[in-house]
Amino acid sequence: MFPTLCQGYKGILMGSLPGASLLLLVFTVPLLIGPSVQAGKIMVFPVDGSHWVNMNLLIQNLHDKGHEVTVVRTATSWYIKESAPHYRSITVTLPQAIAIEKEDFFVKFLIKMLEIKREGSLTGFVKFYWEMLNALSDIHKQASLLGVEMLENKTLMQSIRDNQFDVVLIDPGLPVGVLVAHELKLPTVYNVRWITSGEGHFVVAPSPTSYVPTSAHPVTDKMNFIQRFKNALFYILNTCIDKLVVCPHYDRLVHKYFGPDVKFYHLLQSADIWLMRVDFVFEFPRPTMPNIAYIGGFQCKPSEPLSNELEQFVQSSGEHGVLLMSLGTLVQGLPSEITSEIAAAFAQLPQKVIWRHVGERPSNLGNNTLLVKWMPQNDLLGHPKIKAFVAHGGTNGIYESIYHGVPIIGIPLLFDQFENVLRLEARGAARVVDAAKLTRQNFLEAVQDVLNNPSYRKNMKRLSALHRDKPMHPLDTAVYWIEFVMRHKGAAHLRTESYRMPWYSYYSVDVFVFLLAFLLKLTASVVGFVQFICLPICRKRKSKQE
Amino acid sequence: MFPTLCQGYKGILMGSLPGASLLLLVFTVPLLIGPSVQAGKIMVFPVDGSHWVNMNLLIQNLHDKGHEVTVVRTATSWYIKESAPHYRSITVTLPQAIAIEKEDFFVKFLIKMLEIKREGSLTGFVKFYWEMLNALSDIHKQASLLGVEMLENKTLMQSIRDNQFDVVLIDPGLPVGVLVAHELKLPTVYNVRWITSGEGHFVVAPSPTSYVPTSAHPVTDKMNFIQRFKNALFYILNTCIDKLVVCPHYDRLVHKYFGPDVKFYHLLQSADIWLMRVDFVFEFPRPTMPNIAYIGGFQCKPSEPLSNELEQFVQSSGEHGVLLMSLGTLVQGLPSEITSEIAAAFAQLPQKVIWRHVGERPSNLGNNTLLVKWMPQNDLLGHPKIKAFVAHGGTNGIYESIYHGVPIIGIPLLFDQFENVLRLEARGAARVVDAAKLTRQNFLEAVQDVLNNPSYRKNMKRLSALHRDKPMHPLDTAVYWIEFVMRHKGAAHLRTESYRMPWYSYYSVDVFVFLLAFLLKLTASVVGFVQFICLPICRKRKSKQE
Repeated sequence: MFPTLCQGYKGILMGSLPGASLLLLVFTVPLLIGPSVQAGKIMVFPVDGSHWVNMNLLIQNLHDKGHEVTVVRTATSWYIKESAPHYRSITVTLPQAIAIEKEDFFVKFLIKMLEIKREGSLTGFVKFYWEMLNALSDIHKQASLLGVEMLENKTLMQSIRDNQFDVVLIDPGLPVGVLVAHELKLPTVYNVRWITSGEGHFVVAPSPTSYVPTSAHPVTDKMNFIQRFKNALFYILNTCIDKLVVCPHYDRLVHKYFGPDVKFYHLLQSADIWLMRVDFVFEFPRPTMPNIAYIGGFQCKPSEPLSNELEQFVQSSGEHGVLLMSLGTLVQGLPSEITSEIAAAFAQLPQKVIWRHVGERPSNLGNNTLLVKWMPQNDLLGHPKIKAFVAHGGTNGIYESIYHGVPIIGIPLLFDQFENVLRLEARGAARVVDAAKLTRQNFLEAVQDVLNNPSYRKNMKRLSALHRDKPMHPLDTAVYWIEFVMRHKGAAHLRTESYRMPWYSYYSVDVFVFLLAFLLKLTASVVGFVQFICLPICRKRKSKQE
Repeated sequence: MFPTLCQGYKGILMGSLPGASLLLLVFTVPLLIGPSVQAGKIMVFPVDGSHWVNMNLLIQNLHDKGHEVTVVRTATSWYIKESAPHYRSITVTLPQAIAIEKEDFFVKFLIKMLEIKREGSLTGFVKFYWEMLNALSDIHKQASLLGVEMLENKTLMQSIRDNQFDVVLIDPGLPVGVLVAHELKLPTVYNVRWITSGEGHFVVAPSPTSYVPTSAHPVTDKMNFIQRFKNALFYILNTCIDKLVVCPHYDRLVHKYFGPDVKFYHLLQSADIWLMRVDFVFEFPRPTMPNIAYIGGFQCKPSEPLSNELEQFVQSSGEHGVLLMSLGTLVQGLPSEITSEIAAAFAQLPQKVIWRHVGERPSNLGNNTLLVKWMPQNDLLGHPKIKAFVAHGGTNGIYESIYHGVPIIGIPLLFDQFENVLRLEARGAARVVDAAKLTRQNFLEAVQDVLNNPSYRKNMKRLSALHRDKPMHPLDTAVYWIEFVMRHKGAAHLRTESYRMPWYSYYSVDVFVFLLAFLLKLTASVVGFVQFICLPICRKRKSKQE
């Protein structure tokens, strides 16, 4: 379970997601709908790594609509460049780079985790978990310094004020933008799946643990008693981590800059619109809120023709077709004994294989397997010869697979990937293999099952049809609601302010205690009345009669 | 509070809502979006009265899209005609007409309620409440007989099966269609605001009583302790009414036809899509579910030019403008002493007044007031000379007012009208006058306040702008999701099945009892260990040392 603690910061970058505007054939709605909006000014607080890939796509689209976008980045940023044709930037220099901005952060993490899982020692696990909590705390401590640097810099803040932004677009995985937006009194929109230390819904919508799997707990929405019990424990644990490990770093700032009456968690909950990178063909149905708009798969688009060489390779597979494999940017972190097992399994397949692989070339690679450093993943997934996709289970790749209807063999490595592939497995559209226990036999069996049993493809095609059947393309939905907030200076009518209530009021604990006290008092009064008034009278009458 | 018990059956008919297809200028999306759907077959279970006005509009639109609509009606139906160009019908003869199909049902009800309110006697209230519960029970008993008549009629059911319907569209105020759909194994879509005995959300979404006003309790989403306490009591009361008064009639049928394992309430909760006649410019923000689509105000459309006479009357008002009044079809039920007070107040206004009035003409009517038996309400509300609207607070009229940005003076009479006008009052877009305490003075004061204080109009204009700013017209949303269910034979991926869990599992009561027991056991073990192992050892050591 432990790999999901830091899931707000997974570093998986899909090479196949250029920041271009999308137009899907299946969505026939024109891009500009609803009342038109004047070109506005948008300040963006992104998170580095794979999160940036998504945010950049949205920024590109906002720019194409005529809006002026300004991105706040740190000087040590990994992916977020200082200048691009579609945005300007504000670069802040921090005393120390944020850990997740270092490219080897996640690789080290993965190697350590696989070691621990193989050893299976409880002490090792506890030690690792403790280290992870510390790493999480450090990341947020470092990120909060971005807030300090900005809020302390009066010149910078004045220049931002002078710029008269209309809205702040935030990836709340690192929620510094929330503080800046509050200082500037600007409405906010989140581009979110992970927030602080858990899944976004848990901060804004009711989440009954009886059927909503909590972050870091890979179960479906149909749990037995033990699973529900563990789910409740994970909920408590996640809440504790949020309140004790993550939030204190930001609460210190909030206390300093906005006084003792403002709570960071309330600021976090007060976003006008939550653009949730979720679709219910993937996520289990669960309570939601009126100010959540679902944009899961907003990066998906039809495939384009392959290069000549790649097309030739694909066609050479004949009737057997092609298997695709990519474990994201972290694949070089997989130990060679695992890649060797995978290569051996591939060699036994009649299919051709295209394997995106950055590390050392496995010595036992079959003739049917083509190693590539980068591949046009979306174009390949949309190719009719592709029969299945071996993936780590990052959501970008999962949504592309759903979009094109390609079944998955999941080898989850880190963070939310375990829960992600489980969601597809529960729909009969994927098989999952444990990386720590992977052998050529069990991997081959899983691959052959997905390739030869038509139900996986059928189920994925069904998900694809459901996913594509929307009133509006998810990217247009995202742009629509950002412009909505700009037009109306917020979306207060869609946002409950119940989060401002004390917890005992929110959960009606005070009401039920009062009700219970009242009922007890009533019972006591009735008993007292019978005992001290009725019974003596009866006795008196009886004795008189006697 | 009591007037809302029967609110599923309010009989307010807006004369201005012909069943024509709508095309709003502000919504520039073409009507047909998303994947095209083949013409399908739709079976409809409507509810008579004002509910039919809405359903009929939707049916008209579905017919215009090429779908074949069949409406199930009773032989004694009040508004639902046997034949119309846009639908066919199945007419079922019941042993007795359903009470709400009698035109005087609501009039009698209103007169009785006003009497009780004026008297203010507790005994009278309790007696009235009891009568209402009986009436509610009778209505559902009568309605359930429609189920019996259909399910027992093998020839009818076979002919329906032969018809191969794609979807059943139901107004679940009287939920007989739910049983028939279950028997036919067909997917269902609800056109709903009120269901059995309360607001629709309460059956399908989490509804924390700390900030979600329960049905029949006119409060806002910001409650003090006493309000929250009463809100919880109303929630318990409504649940009891649902489970003890309403559902048993249908549960008997479910038990007879589908066996002991099927629960009526579960069938009720299992609709694929809930088309909720709600918009959050009107409703307070609250938890929702992925299979709820909001279509509040789907009947709204731009106004058309008035007749010459009406236009002349309106123009004759000069700079003062015109006040509109309509209390729906029940206005003839208002006692003459109230209409007389209203007429006296109107006579003192510099504005002209158009009053839709069906009963006896008040003797003290001013020269400025035009009585009409029917008026083109939507066209008038969209006229720039109309300054305010005196309304009873039915949702049809309220949404038309919001759409056109006309502030309201509310005189709520029955059912949900008290809650409806309160929602607008909380937004500063309406003033509310109690019909039972109405005098010419307090009524005039309220009218003048709304006419002369620009904030009411400004707030209503703001609501109007928010209401009109949608990615898609609500009527298109309704059609889209009905067609979605037809395309995919349901929408199971959007619907949680958590309602099938026992309540103690759903609310995690078993988990918390187990957790508590575990913690108690742990504490007892620790205490026992210290008491019987550690302390004796310490004592022994101490005595040895001594």
